[in-house]
Amino acid sequence: MSSLQKARKHYQPKLPDIIKNIERLKPKEDKVLQLDNEAAEELIDRFPKSHDQPLISFTSGSDSDHKPLKVGVVFSGGQAAGGHNVLVGMYRALKKMHKDSLLYGFIGGPKGLIEDDCKELTGKLIDEYANQGGFDLIGSGRDKIEKSEEFEAVKDLVKRRDLNGIVIIGGDDSNTNAAFLAEYFLQHKVDCPVIGVPKTIDGDLTNDYVEASFGFDTACKTYSEIIGNIARDSLSAGKYYFFIKLMGRSASHIALECALQTRPNYTLIGEEVQKEERSLEDIVRDIADLITERAEKGKNYGVILIPEGVIEFVPEMKSLISELNHLLASKEMDQKMNELTSIQAKTEYITHRLSEHSEHSFKLLPKGIQEQLLKERDPHGNVQVSKIESERLLIEMVKVELKKRGDSYKGKFSAQPYFCGYEGRSCFPSNFDADYCYTLGHVAALLIAQKKTGYMACATNLSEPPSQWGILGVPIVPLMHSEMRKGKKKLVVKKALVDLDGPPFHEFAKQRRKWRLDDDYRYPGPIQFFGPEEIVDAVTFSLGMMKKVMS
Amino acid sequence: MSSLQKARKHYQPKLPDIIKNIERLKPKEDKVLQLDNEAAEELIDRFPKSHDQPLISFTSGSDSDHKPLKVGVVFSGGQAAGGHNVLVGMYRALKKMHKDSLLYGFIGGPKGLIEDDCKELTGKLIDEYANQGGFDLIGSGRDKIEKSEEFEAVKDLVKRRDLNGIVIIGGDDSNTNAAFLAEYFLQHKVDCPVIGVPKTIDGDLTNDYVEASFGFDTACKTYSEIIGNIARDSLSAGKYYFFIKLMGRSASHIALECALQTRPNYTLIGEEVQKEERSLEDIVRDIADLITERAEKGKNYGVILIPEGVIEFVPEMKSLISELNHLLASKEMDQKMNELTSIQAKTEYITHRLSEHSEHSFKLLPKGIQEQLLKERDPHGNVQVSKIESERLLIEMVKVELKKRGDSYKGKFSAQPYFCGYEGRSCFPSNFDADYCYTLGHVAALLIAQKKTGYMACATNLSEPPSQWGILGVPIVPLMHSEMRKGKKKLVVKKALVDLDGPPFHEFAKQRRKWRLDDDYRYPGPIQFFGPEEIVDAVTFSLGMMKKVMS
Repeated sequence: MSSLQKARKHYQPKLPDIIKNIERLKPKEDKVLQLDNEAAEELIDRFPKSHDQPLISFTSGSDSDHKPLKVGVVFSGGQAAGGHNVLVGMYRALKKMHKDSLLYGFIGGPKGLIEDDCKELTGKLIDEYANQGGFDLIGSGRDKIEKSEEFEAVKDLVKRRDLNGIVIIGGDDSNTNAAFLAEYFLQHKVDCPVIGVPKTIDGDLTNDYVEASFGFDTACKTYSEIIGNIARDSLSAGKYYFFIKLMGRSASHIALECALQTRPNYTLIGEEVQKEERSLEDIVRDIADLITERAEKGKNYGVILIPEGVIEFVPEMKSLISELNHLLASKEMDQKMNELTSIQAKTEYITHRLSEHSEHSFKLLPKGIQEQLLKERDPHGNVQVSKIESERLLIEMVKVELKKRGDSYKGKFSAQPYFCGYEGRSCFPSNFDADYCYTLGHVAALLIAQKKTGYMACATNLSEPPSQWGILGVPIVPLMHSEMRKGKKKLVVKKALVDLDGPPFHEFAKQRRKWRLDDDYRYPGPIQFFGPEEIVDAVTFSLGMMKKVMS
Repeated sequence: MSSLQKARKHYQPKLPDIIKNIERLKPKEDKVLQLDNEAAEELIDRFPKSHDQPLISFTSGSDSDHKPLKVGVVFSGGQAAGGHNVLVGMYRALKKMHKDSLLYGFIGGPKGLIEDDCKELTGKLIDEYANQGGFDLIGSGRDKIEKSEEFEAVKDLVKRRDLNGIVIIGGDDSNTNAAFLAEYFLQHKVDCPVIGVPKTIDGDLTNDYVEASFGFDTACKTYSEIIGNIARDSLSAGKYYFFIKLMGRSASHIALECALQTRPNYTLIGEEVQKEERSLEDIVRDIADLITERAEKGKNYGVILIPEGVIEFVPEMKSLISELNHLLASKEMDQKMNELTSIQAKTEYITHRLSEHSEHSFKLLPKGIQEQLLKERDPHGNVQVSKIESERLLIEMVKVELKKRGDSYKGKFSAQPYFCGYEGRSCFPSNFDADYCYTLGHVAALLIAQKKTGYMACATNLSEPPSQWGILGVPIVPLMHSEMRKGKKKLVVKKALVDLDGPPFHEFAKQRRKWRLDDDYRYPGPIQFFGPEEIVDAVTFSLGMMKKVMS
């Protein structure tokens, strides 16, 4: 163990004042949330037992008459910093409410529930993992509980293990899954509450009632450390443009927060690209303009941030990808493509079968990217957009564009691609994420003890010190809408995209013109765990600027 | 400015006790170092005035009778954390010795000296940059003072600006350059000492008298943070192999230190590859063995560290590259290659002209890498080995090897390439680098005040607390040897390769078998600036294990 691993074990996560007497809290029913307008009927139909549950807040006053509980917990999906602290919070809350309560960790994600693969999380284990990164105490996985035999298996598990509750720690899809499992149990009279905990570094599992998903804070701070370092390097050496791709596929919250933290010369925000219907050529031209303007000032360096999913926000690319998926889905085409051996032949073959507009888009792409599009397909035959290295794609296209400009661009363009990804998911949680997750663990345990099901464990007022946070149970069904997934309509928790009218984007939009040419870089440095409060307990700009839930 | 930027400005770097009375120190001549055996004659010939200077240590006792000095300072080469603190240390030492002394920073590297481009470093500027990352106060550059008119220009500069000393902060080549400039001044009776300061994140500017170059500590800690995070992610998700390339081209010190810090499953050490004359196929087979063995234990994930320069340590690759350079250097061939339009034709054309052995090596390489080798050439026509993405090369080759294994490999191989590079050069310096650089700045100022020239400013006993460090002037000429550079013999400061008989490598070699299959990852976390001493003031394993200079 490193010295920091040891030291962090002894950090005491901060709790909201209200939780300090968790054993005496009693639930208070608040308003019933409105269902999504367009999906309301379907939601009522699909969730007859759980579509109209109210918000739950808590007040003290109950006597502390708790029974021992057996609770199962599982991680679902990608890592986010602080996950272990949810387990720690749950364990300590359960024990505080009744010393004989037990916590089981199910192994490797939801399939651990299906296959009944678990271990008891003892106090000794829990202490070892307090404030540590990763999900490795019980692992995670991307499976879902979907088929009826899987629901059945979990029902049997609950009976066999005599579980009094299940907590699913995950993103939008996993919380959706929690809602379905809760409804299933209600319908089948299984007395086992199911609670979700909002986890995702992407920051897109927020809404009017959920202020933040855990992991976003630590991921953004970790990426901002790296981006700040690179910006300072770029400025010091004056010779490279860094094209830094940031994890976060469906929304650009991470890119936006990192931009506010580090003030790069240029940042793409997927939601803006989509709204303005910008083409890849527009984007390339815009970046080339920036580089040309900077060259005129003698600056042949800079930092450009690119959200991982930006390609999917470009309308023309979206249609190209959907055309390709459609074309390649046919057995005939698949066979033909397999017959053609050279990539050149494949490219030519497919090009002629695209619509004129998509053919144009496809031909603009660098050869390597064309190959990636045709070669890398998921088990369903779909193009794997996440495999497209957009930072390299843009470097190639900008290079070509600058060459075209001839004498009007006199600079020297040297670029370095970067990817900020996995290193931001399993790090030591920042104090914020450590405190937040510890609190969420308590809230999840509390909701189960109070026999609430189909809820997400939440905390509110998060930009204030933890002592002043509120706690909340948010019913999951009203957070859902209907969405196309792989050609099928599905009920899922709605992802929050970057709000182009919200304060974080406004602040960014106000500053970015200045950041283009000036080198106004800001260097956040590595996450600190000891030292001045304004450093160790700082929240993200995004959270600080957000209007507070319930206030 | 971020909160950390502000807070770090107020960190008071620690100094060796002996420096606290810097104004009263007097130099003590120690032994004269032996010249490199093979280059001795040439060194005597080339450095008639400075080849036999003794080591200089210091004792207190002199009266503090100092005159005001005007000193120039310049950064040379790539960034390394702590550079600004050398300037801060110099400034404060000069002012302490005489309040009217002045410090000039020359802009953009050695060409700032040639072109007399400088700014005065005032107390206000200096305070702003204390303990900050980057080199951006005065920038850096890779130019050298080489031609006679360049030496002349610097001589004129010294007279025009009435300089009493020049400090060159740089790596092996820059310190070589300092030695040549010092000798030139001695020969031309220019009364201006020239002092070098050992800077390089690569850690290869060490020898019997120089314990560490600055920047290595921070770079290794920054990379180890990232590697640790990735290792935890790899373990938590259990689905990817991460192939992480680490900056450091000529030596594998960084890879070795990061391996000791994080305990990955596999680490290539260039020096070992060279010693054992391992081929690329050997390496690929070895990694594939690791992956196969881990798959048998149900583990389809892991972390593999690759030093940036590893390709150059593989004998067959070395000869392939040298053959390619030789072939492509001919005008005729260059023309022919330009005529051929398709990369396929170029590849075929060149393949037939390689020796049988090199043809074999070339054909083994993935197509993309073959292209990189032929396309990316430096202004002298040489293949740019640094542009070869060895992490991707190895992933491609391992994929092919695993496929070949058929039923004997039953795992699932999914790999992610990573590069830890620029983000480790311009970061906030760790306490060690902040203290060390501040000390080196003092020593450089002191050597100039004592009219010593052709020396490197050094500190010793570095694994002890700074109060107990010693300080030393090390004559540069005895650190030099003769080396082939682009086909020509050159006198240069010798790079330190990883010592395969030294304690850090021994420790690594002892542990690595265990690290292969077990997941014995260690998570160092982000660099801390506040908190327990064992965390904030920790030195690298490499330094901690080294025998101490002069002890």
